[in-house]
Order: sequence, then structure tokens, then C-alpha cells
Amino acid sequence: MTGEDLILGIDFGGTKVAIGLADRTGNLLATRRLDTDAHAGAEQVVSRALAAARKLLADEGATDGFTAIGVVSPGIVLEDRILLAPNVPGWEELRLRELVAAEFGGVGIEVGTDAKAAALAEWRWGALADTDPAVFLSLGTGIAAAVLVGGRLLAGANGAAGEIGYNLLSPQDTDGFASGAAPLEEAVGGRGLGGRASVLLGRPVTAGELFALARENAQAKELVSAALDELSMHVANLAIALDPQRIAVGGGLVRSADVLLPALRERLAQAVPFPPELVSAKFDQDASLLGAIAIALDAA
Amino acid sequence: MTGEDLILGIDFGGTKVAIGLADRTGNLLATRRLDTDAHAGAEQVVSRALAAARKLLADEGATDGFTAIGVVSPGIVLEDRILLAPNVPGWEELRLRELVAAEFGGVGIEVGTDAKAAALAEWRWGALADTDPAVFLSLGTGIAAAVLVGGRLLAGANGAAGEIGYNLLSPQDTDGFASGAAPLEEAVGGRGLGGRASVLLGRPVTAGELFALARENAQAKELVSAALDELSMHVANLAIALDPQRIAVGGGLVRSADVLLPALRERLAQAVPFPPELVSAKFDQDASLLGAIAIALDAA
Repeated sequence: MTGEDLILGIDFGGTKVAIGLADRTGNLLATRRLDTDAHAGAEQVVSRALAAARKLLADEGATDGFTAIGVVSPGIVLEDRILLAPNVPGWEELRLRELVAAEFGGVGIEVGTDAKAAALAEWRWGALADTDPAVFLSLGTGIAAAVLVGGRLLAGANGAAGEIGYNLLSPQDTDGFASGAAPLEEAVGGRGLGGRASVLLGRPVTAGELFALARENAQAKELVSAALDELSMHVANLAIALDPQRIAVGGGLVRSADVLLPALRERLAQAVPFPPELVSAKFDQDASLLGAIAIALDAA
Repeated sequence: MTGEDLILGIDFGGTKVAIGLADRTGNLLATRRLDTDAHAGAEQVVSRALAAARKLLADEGATDGFTAIGVVSPGIVLEDRILLAPNVPGWEELRLRELVAAEFGGVGIEVGTDAKAAALAEWRWGALADTDPAVFLSLGTGIAAAVLVGGRLLAGANGAAGEIGYNLLSPQDTDGFASGAAPLEEAVGGRGLGGRASVLLGRPVTAGELFALARENAQAKELVSAALDELSMHVANLAIALDPQRIAVGGGLVRSADVLLPALRERLAQAVPFPPELVSAKFDQDASLLGAIAIALDAA
């Protein structure tokens, strides 16, 4: 395989960075993972990741180089900063594209939002193939959606389409983005759910553990049930607005798919004139990394 | 002006039919209006409208004919029926395109949903020109939205995108499309609002009168205020999902724009990461008729 067939991807998450070398069909040939050590600052994460990427290329004997690099992160990646990425300390001041270009000149560089990139990977190679419109729901620490119309990502006027973690919950809600709140994400995202479960049960509990506990513990069950009622209403209203053919669900919460997916399907059937199919995403922890590969192909 | 420059449009509403002859830039040269007399059945509405259109052409000396006809109605117009049009009795069984083709053969025929067509007219000639994404909100008896991405209408997988009148109102809501409900439309649409106002005030009151009364009557003010809280939350969540550049508001409720628009703007500023512009639509009662002309241009 020559360098023309190789694509490099980097996925910056809140706690982990994933780096992958792939071919043009989205097959990952090799991957590396490292911790962000976010407390030490955002720039050190990027420089360590770029060094690890350089080493990965050497390890794999990619002496011929590679043809493009895709880099994804939470938020909207602009030239001089990253918007809507409050979960990664220091991240919002980062000049990500510039740092990548300084390390890897002469190849195509594409930067993007992780959930949108993951949606593109699902549409190219995964659970959303041949569907239109297609919706990818990322349900994890963060809550976001990405929409593909005719196989093209709906960016919005400012790259912020699909950021449904900011959705208001009730007509009386006076908090919102302007006051630093992300109401839906705080209510049903992994962090908010784990936090409320920990208070309720008097010990540290993750969202995943909460879903498991809900099988036997009445308090846990009630909390999960309320979260699913809330989340499923927002997913139904999103489906009413977009009339998608299929919705694929990814992110950490999908590990509780046995509870999550039936609740979402039931609500879609209740509320949406033409209920879309609802499936698990094909790609699990590599979803955003493959997304980085997918957006890089556009720059190759 | 030759027949090649003339476009015919027909807008079937719940109580009125509008017919117009226009040039290719959306200038209405002549219009006619008639009552639907809906109780007498759906087919007679169509045949009277087509006869009136034929007479309009003769009156205007359009002996050279015309080049295309656009026909819009509530709902999703299919070959053998019309979906999601419960407000017009008998309408759902109608073979609208076939009836039009039987009267006017040899010209391009386009049929579509009124709110989506109105959105296209606003994008071509009105308040949504040069914006992307663009959202048209139709707030009247019915509540619906239409979305344009790159100047193309977002249809959805079944033509039902934007039918936000079916939105659920709360996580506990167990009614919805499947049980014959349209929760948001019943809560804030003109009919639902007028009905609740009539009960509250003990006499028949329209939604428009309710907005006027709210300036002095505390009960009316409370009802309007609750409706605006509800509606504005749904508009904000829609804007979060789509990140539009501009939203234009049309439909009967926009006659209360002095109260309606500030309430919507305030909520967008509270909740949406990049609050879109919010304006009144350019076209008032002719919005859907111009929409019929706009979609016909695609068939010309």
C-alpha cells in the first residue's frame, strides 16, 4: 500500500485521544490511544498526539507518507479557536488546524466536530448507509445529533446544527446556552445522569452502572425511566422536524441499548407521523476516529 | 407577455381557494378567490377551482396559454391521496394531480405542501432570500415549519419534514400522532388557542382577538403568555437542531407580530448558541399562492 492510499485520523476526546491509520475504505490498519492529561493544558495534548501519530507512521513502515489527515474534537473547530467545547479545559483557545499543519505540511488537512464526523463514517461504512435523511445520535457525556441530507452533513449557518444538548426542557425553563446551561445534556447526558445517581444512591455511580442497577433497584429504575421519558421526547420531536429514514444511536449510553433503544422506538411510534428506523451505530469506541478518517477523505 | 412567461398557481386552504396568474419573477398579474364550501365534498372544490382558473386565463386574454401550474394544499400530496390533511374534510382521498392533469394537459404540473411552497417563495422573492439554512414558520390554524438547505426544501424521507404541529409537549405526554393528536398545534395553533380563549372568556373569541385582549385582560394575558412560552421553546429547540441563519414567520398569528416576535426573539437569545435572525414573512395572505407559483417554476 502506498502513501496515496493511507489516511491518518486523530480523535481528541475529553479524557482520551485515539490515533488511527486507515485505508480509503475505512479499514483501520493500526491505532494508538493516549490519555489527554487535560489538567496539564490543551496544547500538550495536541503535541503529544502529533508525536504519537508520527511514531505510528514509522512503526507501520509508512515511509512513503500518507495523503491526508482528519482531526476531530468536540465543538466547532475554527481557525483561531474552538467553540462549544466546554468539557475540555483550555480547548476553546486552541488553534488546532495550525498546530496540525505545523507538524504535517504538504498533506490535506480536515478538521471537524466529532459527532458530525462519526455520522459521516456511519453513512459511508456503517449503520446509516443508503439512508436519506440520516440522523446520528451521540448519547454519552455529551448529547448531540448530526444530520445527513443526501449524504451531506447539515452544518448549519455556524457549524452548530445538531447541538441538541442545549435543548430547553420546559416552557418555564429560563436557563439555556446564554446562561451557561446545556439543559438536555445536564438532564440525560452521562455526566449529569451519573451525578444524580451518585447523590441518590449515596456512592459514586456511572450512568452505565445506573442502567444496570435499574433492573433491581426501584430508585435507580425511576431515575432511568424519567431520563428516558425526557430524552425520547426530544428524539421524537427531532424526528418530527426532519422526517429521517433512519436514526443510528452511538456514544457510551448505547451500551445500555437493551433498555435505551426500546424506549426510543416506543416514543417514535407514538409521536412521529412516519416513525424512522432506529438502530445501534455500527462503530462503537472507534466511531469518531473513523469519522476523522471519513472527513479526511474529502481533503485527500 | 407570451404563454411561456405565464405561471398559474392554485392554493387550496381549509376555507378558501386562491388562484393566481403570475410571471416568472413571482409578480401576481391577476388573482381570484372562492370559498371551498368544504361540507359539499372535496372534489367539487377542485372542479370549481379549475373552472375558475380557466376563466381567469380567458379574462386575462392569456389565449396563448401558460407554461406550468403549481397546486398546493395542506398535507403531503401523493398520486392517490393526501396525507396529514385532517383539517379539510374529504381531502385525504383526493387524487389531486390527476384531476389537475385532466383539466390542464400539456403543461408542467407540480403539486406540494402549502407551508413548504410558501417557504420556497420567501426564499426566492421574500424574507428568506440569500439565507442558508432558512426556516419558514407557519403559525396559523395549523403549525408547521419548512427548512431550506442551500435553497432546497428539506422534504424528509416521506415528505413530512417540518410537521412540528405533532411535537410532544412534555416527557409525560402519552398522546401523539398515533392517537390522532397534534399536541403542539392543539396547544398554540389558532384553533386551539381560540377554543381555549372562548371557554375562558365565555364567548366566541378568535386567536387574533385573544392577542388584542391580552393588552388589558389579565386572563387573556395569562393564556397568551403560556402559549408563547410553549411555542417559543419549540422554536428555540428547532433552531438549536438546524442552526438556521434566519427564521421567517408567516400565518395568521403573525398579525399579532408585536407580541409574538419579541417573545420568540427573547427565547432564541436565551437558548440557541447562535441565535438566528427572526423576521416577519414578506408575503401575508398570498404566501402559499406564491408558493404554488414557485414550485411550478421548477416544472416549467
